[in-house]
Amino acid sequence: MSSTFGRLFRVTTFGESHGPGVGAVVDGCPSLLDLAPVDIQRELDRRRPGQGALATPRQEADQVEILSGVEDGRTLGTPIALLVRNRDQRPGDYAELAEAPRPSHADYTVQQKYGLRSASGGGRASARETVGRVAGGAIAAHWLRSACGVEIVAWVEQVGGLGPAQVDAATITRAAVDAHPTRCPDAQLADALAQAITAAQADGDSVGGVIACACRGLPAGWGEPVFDKLEAMLAHAMLSLPATKGFEIGSGFAGAALRGSEHNDAFVARDGGLGTATNRSGGVQGGISNGEPVTFRVAFKPPATIARAQRTAGYDGVLRDLAAGGRHDPCVVPRAVPIVEAMAALVLADLALIQRARG
Amino acid sequence: MSSTFGRLFRVTTFGESHGPGVGAVVDGCPSLLDLAPVDIQRELDRRRPGQGALATPRQEADQVEILSGVEDGRTLGTPIALLVRNRDQRPGDYAELAEAPRPSHADYTVQQKYGLRSASGGGRASARETVGRVAGGAIAAHWLRSACGVEIVAWVEQVGGLGPAQVDAATITRAAVDAHPTRCPDAQLADALAQAITAAQADGDSVGGVIACACRGLPAGWGEPVFDKLEAMLAHAMLSLPATKGFEIGSGFAGAALRGSEHNDAFVARDGGLGTATNRSGGVQGGISNGEPVTFRVAFKPPATIARAQRTAGYDGVLRDLAAGGRHDPCVVPRAVPIVEAMAALVLADLALIQRARG
Amino acid sequence: MSSTFGRLFRVTTFGESHGPGVGAVVDGCPSLLDLAPVDIQRELDRRRPGQGALATPRQEADQVEILSGVEDGRTLGTPIALLVRNRDQRPGDYAELAEAPRPSHADYTVQQKYGLRSASGGGRASARETVGRVAGGAIAAHWLRSACGVEIVAWVEQVGGLGPAQVDAATITRAAVDAHPTRCPDAQLADALAQAITAAQADGDSVGGVIACACRGLPAGWGEPVFDKLEAMLAHAMLSLPATKGFEIGSGFAGAALRGSEHNDAFVARDGGLGTATNRSGGVQGGISNGEPVTFRVAFKPPATIARAQRTAGYDGVLRDLAAGGRHDPCVVPRAVPIVEAMAALVLADLALIQRARG
Amino acid sequence: MSSTFGRLFRVTTFGESHGPGVGAVVDGCPSLLDLAPVDIQRELDRRRPGQGALATPRQEADQVEILSGVEDGRTLGTPIALLVRNRDQRPGDYAELAEAPRPSHADYTVQQKYGLRSASGGGRASARETVGRVAGGAIAAHWLRSACGVEIVAWVEQVGGLGPAQVDAATITRAAVDAHPTRCPDAQLADALAQAITAAQADGDSVGGVIACACRGLPAGWGEPVFDKLEAMLAHAMLSLPATKGFEIGSGFAGAALRGSEHNDAFVARDGGLGTATNRSGGVQGGISNGEPVTFRVAFKPPATIARAQRTAGYDGVLRDLAAGGRHDPCVVPRAVPIVEAMAALVLADLALIQRARG
Repeated sequence: MSSTFGRLFRVTTFGESHGPGVGAVVDGCPSLLDLAPVDIQRELDRRRPGQGALATPRQEADQVEILSGVEDGRTLGTPIALLVRNRDQRPGDYAELAEAPRPSHADYTVQQKYGLRSASGGGRASARETVGRVAGGAIAAHWLRSACGVEIVAWVEQVGGLGPAQVDAATITRAAVDAHPTRCPDAQLADALAQAITAAQADGDSVGGVIACACRGLPAGWGEPVFDKLEAMLAHAMLSLPATKGFEIGSGFAGAALRGSEHNDAFVARDGGLGTATNRSGGVQGGISNGEPVTFRVAFKPPATIARAQRTAGYDGVLRDLAAGGRHDPCVVPRAVPIVEAMAALVLADLALIQRARG
Repeated sequence: MSSTFGRLFRVTTFGESHGPGVGAVVDGCPSLLDLAPVDIQRELDRRRPGQGALATPRQEADQVEILSGVEDGRTLGTPIALLVRNRDQRPGDYAELAEAPRPSHADYTVQQKYGLRSASGGGRASARETVGRVAGGAIAAHWLRSACGVEIVAWVEQVGGLGPAQVDAATITRAAVDAHPTRCPDAQLADALAQAITAAQADGDSVGGVIACACRGLPAGWGEPVFDKLEAMLAHAMLSLPATKGFEIGSGFAGAALRGSEHNDAFVARDGGLGTATNRSGGVQGGISNGEPVTFRVAFKPPATIARAQRTAGYDGVLRDLAAGGRHDPCVVPRAVPIVEAMAALVLADLALIQRARG
Repeated sequence: MSSTFGRLFRVTTFGESHGPGVGAVVDGCPSLLDLAPVDIQRELDRRRPGQGALATPRQEADQVEILSGVEDGRTLGTPIALLVRNRDQRPGDYAELAEAPRPSHADYTVQQKYGLRSASGGGRASARETVGRVAGGAIAAHWLRSACGVEIVAWVEQVGGLGPAQVDAATITRAAVDAHPTRCPDAQLADALAQAITAAQADGDSVGGVIACACRGLPAGWGEPVFDKLEAMLAHAMLSLPATKGFEIGSGFAGAALRGSEHNDAFVARDGGLGTATNRSGGVQGGISNGEPVTFRVAFKPPATIARAQRTAGYDGVLRDLAAGGRHDPCVVPRAVPIVEAMAALVLADLALIQRARG
Repeated sequence: MSSTFGRLFRVTTFGESHGPGVGAVVDGCPSLLDLAPVDIQRELDRRRPGQGALATPRQEADQVEILSGVEDGRTLGTPIALLVRNRDQRPGDYAELAEAPRPSHADYTVQQKYGLRSASGGGRASARETVGRVAGGAIAAHWLRSACGVEIVAWVEQVGGLGPAQVDAATITRAAVDAHPTRCPDAQLADALAQAITAAQADGDSVGGVIACACRGLPAGWGEPVFDKLEAMLAHAMLSLPATKGFEIGSGFAGAALRGSEHNDAFVARDGGLGTATNRSGGVQGGISNGEPVTFRVAFKPPATIARAQRTAGYDGVLRDLAAGGRHDPCVVPRAVPIVEAMAALVLADLALIQRARG
C-alpha cells in the first residue's frame, strides 16, 4: 500500500522525478466542495523548486491539471486526479551515479529492493514525489478549512542547530511564515538561518533543520484510541516524508525528563466546556484530540546529495571520491513547510471523516 | 481500523482494563512455525504488573490461552487468538473519577468521542490494552527470529532526564537488559534511574523516560518507499503506544543540527556487498532497510495518573483538588521495553512478508 | 486480510473446528448501543448444529461469552470480542482423511497452500468458522435495526432443484421463516424440501439449495459507486461462505435474457420522493441503494462430505473408495439462513457507516 | 475505498465520462516486467466504443499514455499511472436528464448519495469508468502471463436468452473470441446473437447477456480461506462492473440442484500430483485454487439507457415519457469481455502476490 495514504480520505501518488510527470489521485473528498485549480496551485507554488537562492535551481512551473472529480468548480465526490508534468528533467546529470550509490541516499536500497538501478535521479525517493502529496493535501486542507474551520500552519524552527524560533502557535499565519525565504517567522532568527543555508551551499554542503506545526480549530474527538491515535497517524505521515529523522507531539522528548505533576495539563472551564491551562499534551489525550491546538515538530536531516566529494565505496566495493552533480537543495526545510502542512491535512481530514461516521 | 495493525501480518487487540479479559487475534502468521505457549508467556511475564517496587502493585498472573491457530505445537497459518483473563479488577478504585477527568489522561477525550464516561479505569486507554500487543508481537518476534534471523532488543536509555545509557546497539541482549529492574543495561546509570523512580513514587508523583531499540539481522530491502517507509511504520507503531511523545530514527533531532558531510553514512565493502561505516541513518535509506541495525528511540511522558492532588476542573467546570486512587506505575519505561519490542516486531514481520511477495 | 471483513464496521473471526473454540472480534460498532448476550445468542441458536433431523447430530451448546466492548449492557465503542468454546470435538473421526483428500472439500487445497494436513476436520474450511460470522453479524443486525430501521430476512427458496418458494419479500419475517425446520416459509413447498433432505441423508448423500434474502428499510445512498458497489460487497460476502457457488442481485441471470424496456424499473412518486414501480434492480442502481428492498439469492452446493463411498485418488495418487465418517449436514441451507443474514448485516452496517462519514 | 481495488496489486481508477480524461494508477506491480504501451493499448482497443454496428457510435481513440512507473520498457516497481483523454464528449446530449432520472440508471441514486445531479452523462456510473480497469488489468494480465504462466479468456455465452455457447474452456483463445463481432466463439450461435442485438437496437431497445471466463495455469494455493476466497474476490470484482446482476463459479446455481455424489469432483493422479476428473468446483475448493481452470460466469442486464420512450416519474414526481438521447450500446457483453478479463486479472495478480508472501 506504499503509494496510498488514508482510509476514507485517501491520496495515491505517482511519478518519477525524471519521467513524464508526477501527481496524485484523491479519493473520498466529500462532494459539493468549492474547489478551483488555484486552491491547489497556491500550495504547489509554495513547494516548487527555483524559488530563490535558498533552493535548488531546477526550474519547474509545476502547473497542475485537474483531470477528474471536479465539475463547474465543485467536487463531485469522485476521485480527483491531479497531474503535474515534469519539464526540466536532466537524467544525464546522474550518469556518475551508475557506479556508486550516494551515501545516505536511496540508490543502494532501491537497487536491493527492486533489483534495478534507476538512471533517473532516484525515482520515487526524490523529493519530487512530494508534489502529489502537496496537491492532495491542498484539497484536504481546503476541505478542513471550509467544512470544519481547521487551520494548519507550519514553520521553520531550527536550521543547523540554530534556534528554536520563538513563535506563538495560537496565532501564527501562513502569510507571516512565507514572509521570509527561510519560512522562519522569528525575525530575530530568520536571517541567521538563511546565512547557515547559504554558507553550507557555498561549501558544497547541506544542512538539516526542524519544522514545527500547529493545527487549530479541531473539535475534541478526532483520532482513534488504539493503533490509529492522532499522534500515531501524524508520526506515520511525517516519517514518510523524505529526509525526516524524528517526530514529537507536544512536549516530545523534553517531556520525558519531567515529572507528572510538572507535565500534566490541568483542565479549566472554557466556552461552556473544558480546555486545558497548558498544552504539553500537544492537543491529544489517549490519541484523541482534546480541542486544544495540535502541535508537533519534525526533524529533517541535511540532504544526502552534496556537491563536495565524499569518500565512499562503489557498487564494486572499491572506495572512490564521489561528488554529485544534479541540482539540489542545500536545506529542505523552507520548501518542506507546505509538505508538512499537506501531510497533516491528509491525516486530519481522514480522522475527521472517520469520526463523522460515528454520527 | 483502530484496533487492527498491519497489512499481511496483522494483529487485532481487544479488551478493557476492568472487563473479563484482554487479548489479540494474530492473522497472517505463516504456517509451520513451531510455537509454544511459553514463547508468548515469556514476553507477557516481562510486561506484567506486580514485578517489584518500581511498578504498580496490581497483581495479574496474565496467563495466556491460545484459542486457535496452533495445533500440535505448530502454527496452522490461520488466525491465532490469544486470551488473557483479568483477575484483579477493582473498578471501585475509580469512583472519584466520575466527577472530574484526570489531567492529561483520556477520560475527557473518550467521553467527547464516544459520548460515555467509562467507570472502568479508562477502558482502552489503559496500559492494559498492551497485553494484546505484547502477545501478538511475541509471535511476530518468534517468527522473525526463526525464519529471518532478526533480533530485536530494547532498553531504558533515560529516566527523568538522567542518561543516556551507554549501550552497544550491536551486541546488547535481552538478558542483559532484564538483569536490572529498571531495564537499563548501563550499570553505572541503572541505580540512579531506579532512585529517580522511587523518589517520584515517594512524592506521589511519576516520571518520564526514553527507550532505545535496535533491530539486527534485517536484510536490505524491507520497507516501502513512499508512505509505508520502514521508519514511518515504526513511528506509527511507537506513537500508538500509550504515553509516547516522540520518535527518532538513527540520528533523530540531533541529526537536524548537522551538515550533510557530517551526517552521511559512507559505504564500505562488507560481506561481498556494501555496508556503511557509520549508522546515522538508523539502518534505513529512502524508507528501506540497508542491512545495518535499525535503531530508534521513543520518548514516554510521566504517567498522567498520580496520587498527589492536582488542581483541575471537573466536568462541571469547577476547580477542585483531584488525587487519583487506583494502582499505577510511577514510571512506564521499564515495563514498556517488551511493548516497544513487540510493536517493532509487528512492523518488521509485516514488511518482511510484503517484501517476500515481490518474490 | 483473509480473516477480517469490513472497513469501518469490521469483524475478524478465528477458530478451528476442533480446537479450543471459535469466535470473533467486532471493531467499529458505535458506542451506546444497548446490547445483551441474548441478542447474539439468539442467532447462534438459529445456526447451531443438533437442531433436529435435518442437521448434523454434532451437539454444541454454542454459548457465547462477551469478553470485551460491552459494559452495563451498552457498547463502549471498543472492540467486542466474542468467544464460543468447542465442546463436542472428535478429531478422531477424521483419521481416515490422512490418506486421501475428500473430493470437493478443502483438504487438498489447504495442504497445497499451507504445507500441512490438518487432522482436525478441515480447520478454517469447516462450517464451524461461521460461528464468528453469525456472532458478529448479530451485532451488526442489532445496530441496523436499532439505529437505522433496517430489517434483514433470509429464507430457503430451493432444495435439490425443488422450488422456488413463493414468498413476499416485502413482508416475510424471521418468525415465519423459522416456523418450519427447513426454513422455507412456503407451506406448500416446505415439506417437499424436508423430504428431499431426508432422502439424501438416507442415501448417505447430500443435496444443495438456494437461499433468498431481503433487506428492507435502507435509505437511498448506501454503497460506493465503483469497486465497492452494494451488490459487489454482498457478492463478496456471500461467496466467502463455505459451499456457495453463485450470487444474484434482483433479476440476476434471468435479467440477462430480457430487453431494457422489459427490465427497467420505472420511477413513481412515493412518500414525497421517488420509488420504483418494479424492483428488478434488487434495490440498487449504480451500486447504490435506491430505497427499495435489497433482494438477492445465493446458491449452495451439496455438502462435499458424504457418507457413501466415492472413488477418488489418495495423496499417493492411487484410486480408492472413500467414505467419510464424522457428523455432517445433508443440506446446509436451513442452517445457512442466519449466516446469510449475518453477512448481509455486516455489509450493510459497514456501508451505512461509510455513507455517514459524508455527513 | 471505492475507487481502489486490491491489496498488494492495486488499481485506483479515476475519471468522468465527460471530463478531461479517465485512467488508473496501478501500484504493486513487481519491477523488471517488460511492459510496452501496446500491451495496454491492445486491451483498450478491444474495449473501446465505435467498433462497429453492435456498439455505441461514440468515437474514442482511447490512446493510453504511461505517466510513470516504466523506464526503458521495464517496470520500476513504482506506481504506473495511465491516462486516456476523452475526445468525443457531448454533455449536451444529456440535457433532458436534468428533469427526470433514467429508470434503472444511477442518476437518482448518485443524486441521493452526493447531493448533486451531474450534467455529464452519469459521472462514474458510466461504462467509461472501465477504461481504467482495462488499462490496469492489462498490466496484471501481462504479469500473470509472463511471471506465472496464467492465461485468462472470456467470451459471450448468451445474449437475450439465446445460448449458451458451446465452448471448450480448456482451449479457447482470445483470438478465437475476437473473430466474431459478438465475441461469441460458437459459430453456430454467434450470428443469432448479433441479430438479437441489432433487432433490439432497431427497436430503440437494449438486450442483456452472459459472459463466461476461464483462467488457466494457476497453481494450487491461490486464494485466502475465509473472507477473501478466490471466488469471493472474483464475485466482488464482477459485481462491481456496471450492469452486472449475477455471478457463478463452476456449477453455479445449477449445482444447487444436485446431490453431493453427483457434484463432487473426484481426485485423479495428474502430473505427479492430483487433479480432478470433473470441474464442477470451478477450480476452487475452500476458496483456494486447486490447479484446475477457474471458470465463472457473469450476468449483464440490458443497458438501462434506451432510445424508446419510457413512462417514468421526474424528480418532481410527475409521470412523463422519457426517451434518452446520447449514444449507447444496445448490448454491453461484446465490449465487456475484455473488462471481465481485466478484473479477473486484477484479482488473480493480487492473490498470487499474497500467496507469494508466504514464501
